[in-house]
Amino acid sequence: MIATHVSLVAAASGGHEAALAPILLALAVILAAAKFAGSVAIRLGQPAVLGELVAGIALGNLHLVGIGALDGLEGNATLEVLAGLGVIILLFEVGLESTVRDMLKVGWPSLFVAVLGVVAPFALGWLVGVMLLPDRSPYVHAFLGATLTATSVGITARVLKDLGRSDSSEARVILGAAVIDDVLGLVILAVVAGVIGAADAGGSLSALDIGWILAKAVGFLGGALAIGLVLSPKLFGIASRLRGHGVLLATALVFCFGLAYLASLAGLAALVGAYAAGLVLERVHYRELASRENHELEQLIHPIASLLVPVFFVLMGTKVGLEHFASTEILLLAALLTVAAVLGKQVCALGAFGGGLDRLTIGLGMIPRGEVGLIFASIGLGLSVRGEPIVDAGIYSAVVIMVVITTMATPPALKWSLGRRYRR
Amino acid sequence: MIATHVSLVAAASGGHEAALAPILLALAVILAAAKFAGSVAIRLGQPAVLGELVAGIALGNLHLVGIGALDGLEGNATLEVLAGLGVIILLFEVGLESTVRDMLKVGWPSLFVAVLGVVAPFALGWLVGVMLLPDRSPYVHAFLGATLTATSVGITARVLKDLGRSDSSEARVILGAAVIDDVLGLVILAVVAGVIGAADAGGSLSALDIGWILAKAVGFLGGALAIGLVLSPKLFGIASRLRGHGVLLATALVFCFGLAYLASLAGLAALVGAYAAGLVLERVHYRELASRENHELEQLIHPIASLLVPVFFVLMGTKVGLEHFASTEILLLAALLTVAAVLGKQVCALGAFGGGLDRLTIGLGMIPRGEVGLIFASIGLGLSVRGEPIVDAGIYSAVVIMVVITTMATPPALKWSLGRRYRR
Repeated sequence: MIATHVSLVAAASGGHEAALAPILLALAVILAAAKFAGSVAIRLGQPAVLGELVAGIALGNLHLVGIGALDGLEGNATLEVLAGLGVIILLFEVGLESTVRDMLKVGWPSLFVAVLGVVAPFALGWLVGVMLLPDRSPYVHAFLGATLTATSVGITARVLKDLGRSDSSEARVILGAAVIDDVLGLVILAVVAGVIGAADAGGSLSALDIGWILAKAVGFLGGALAIGLVLSPKLFGIASRLRGHGVLLATALVFCFGLAYLASLAGLAALVGAYAAGLVLERVHYRELASRENHELEQLIHPIASLLVPVFFVLMGTKVGLEHFASTEILLLAALLTVAAVLGKQVCALGAFGGGLDRLTIGLGMIPRGEVGLIFASIGLGLSVRGEPIVDAGIYSAVVIMVVITTMATPPALKWSLGRRYRR
Repeated sequence: MIATHVSLVAAASGGHEAALAPILLALAVILAAAKFAGSVAIRLGQPAVLGELVAGIALGNLHLVGIGALDGLEGNATLEVLAGLGVIILLFEVGLESTVRDMLKVGWPSLFVAVLGVVAPFALGWLVGVMLLPDRSPYVHAFLGATLTATSVGITARVLKDLGRSDSSEARVILGAAVIDDVLGLVILAVVAGVIGAADAGGSLSALDIGWILAKAVGFLGGALAIGLVLSPKLFGIASRLRGHGVLLATALVFCFGLAYLASLAGLAALVGAYAAGLVLERVHYRELASRENHELEQLIHPIASLLVPVFFVLMGTKVGLEHFASTEILLLAALLTVAAVLGKQVCALGAFGGGLDRLTIGLGMIPRGEVGLIFASIGLGLSVRGEPIVDAGIYSAVVIMVVITTMATPPALKWSLGRRYRR
């Protein structure tokens, strides 16, 4: 009798409460696992994000050891949206770290390194796809290539900082190239996703259509940056006349979410808009609000990132099926993708001409795929052409292995290379 | 051709992106409207929360002037969860401002105020039902009484916070009573809903079953506070050994979300657990982490609240349908319910004996029904006894009017009353 009534009472609490409770449990578990595994990763000399990913893999594969309590975690729509908001906030934060002027200033070595660092891995990734997955459509091969283009400069920047080499000429080339790489990678992602979307609809794709998708991607970024630079000071000017608490943070978030929404209206990934918003925003636009509220924008964004970003990485981990690691086919794909990822970025270092630059260091610094590779892979999981998924569970697992290896290998390799160079 | 591809590309971005875009738009609109309307409210000498609520009513009724763009706003499940997380964070913040020791100091006045604040409105609400709806079943009358019992601690807390009076002795009595009130109100709701469910099924509820539901609610709060005080220092002790950034915030959120989840497992509102978590947490537990990370917990929680709390208040506003406000029958019921709601909570202030407490302030602070009243009403919409709905559209509208009036009248009344008291 009592048991029946207890469930009645729970049902009476309404849909609102019923939907909230599993999210509360998931957030508590995700945050606890992320911080614990992140700490273990740091103790092992690895970036915290790697720990969060592994925590997700562990949580997502608990069913292999007979624990099924968290099976619903990866399928929850609300959790997916929270993870998506996490990526939006992460890209906004990354964008805030550089300005449009920084991007224009990176110089020719960075530009060449960036372009080669996108072209070479794309070609190699495509080749790996053609070789190992000959039966799959060219779209799958193109997507594998696209996934290899991204550089996750956060890890390299951290290592350079730890070693006190942030101001070396190699560091400037790497960081400059990584900024352009981000933009080029997002354009490639937009084009590949657009082409796949069109192909899925059964339409044949003309060169004109591909050109239009490319123009739209480049046009959106260019337009967002140009119009944003005019609009942002006006928006914050209006906001600075508003009373109340938290106006700076709210205005920045409105700008970020608004541009992210416009990006997805334009058929691009929402994170492209969030990154553009971060690039456009400069301290001079909101100086007045920041001094009134006695907080810097980065300080205000960071706690929101601390809540939402781990949701993304842990959730990405839960999508990795460890059972795929038993397949030699997948392991071979992972191995060749890793080789392509490393070689592709070594090729790009050839673009770093002149100035006595150490090409090996630059090439090594560009290797990690980290969070950006995961973001690409997550978008691939949602794509399909006539029922054939572009990135299935096996390919996704191979991509994640590649991301983990490139990310783990970079810090020690970079330490060795920089030590070698600066000991002389 | 081109237009087709644009929408195809958006679709190709996958379910993930497709669910994310409307949330991004909604968050941008909600934050912009909340800050703008909040600023207007402040200029008019009112607390910002009143502006946010009015912004929500405006957004939710745009269809009356022919704008349908935001019609989906109030029904979105993810937005509901974000609003729910907003209440959780708000109650956690409010709880952080006092300790269990503070609560026990004003314990007896709070308890008496709370019990009287549930008994008096329940009786008056039942009476209004018997008078105006004599043909309806006693279940309808009981439900109207139950709807009047709850105090919306969120709105009162927000007003007190806006006015910088969160630490006055009246505030502690109000917040203490409101939380006990919430528990008592939810117990009454659980019991009434249980009785109605049993009546609908043709069964009956024994006194033992009602006693069990009651014991569970009281036991949860007492248990959470007692066990939490032992557990919290241990949890933060373990956390202080973890490396990485943001450990303090993550640990606090794990504690908050965990207790909130346990509260909803016990069949209570999750916000009761979040408030208990805030009460239990004391700076001495996390002193080491706070000094290591050079941030206070309140500074870290606040930006998250700035994002999520306005979502809750604006969404509550959108649920108000202005078109229901045209029937005189409904307006009479609404008027008498409002009088019962106000009188019932003035009676409860008589329980606030001793200590030079300002009874008028306490009585006024207990008036708003806010989100809890709306949740009660919406649950009533879903209940029926043998085909007769417990709360039909007309009664629902009257309850909504009562909730709006009590909620809107409280901030200015409380502001006036606190100003009168603290000017002396």
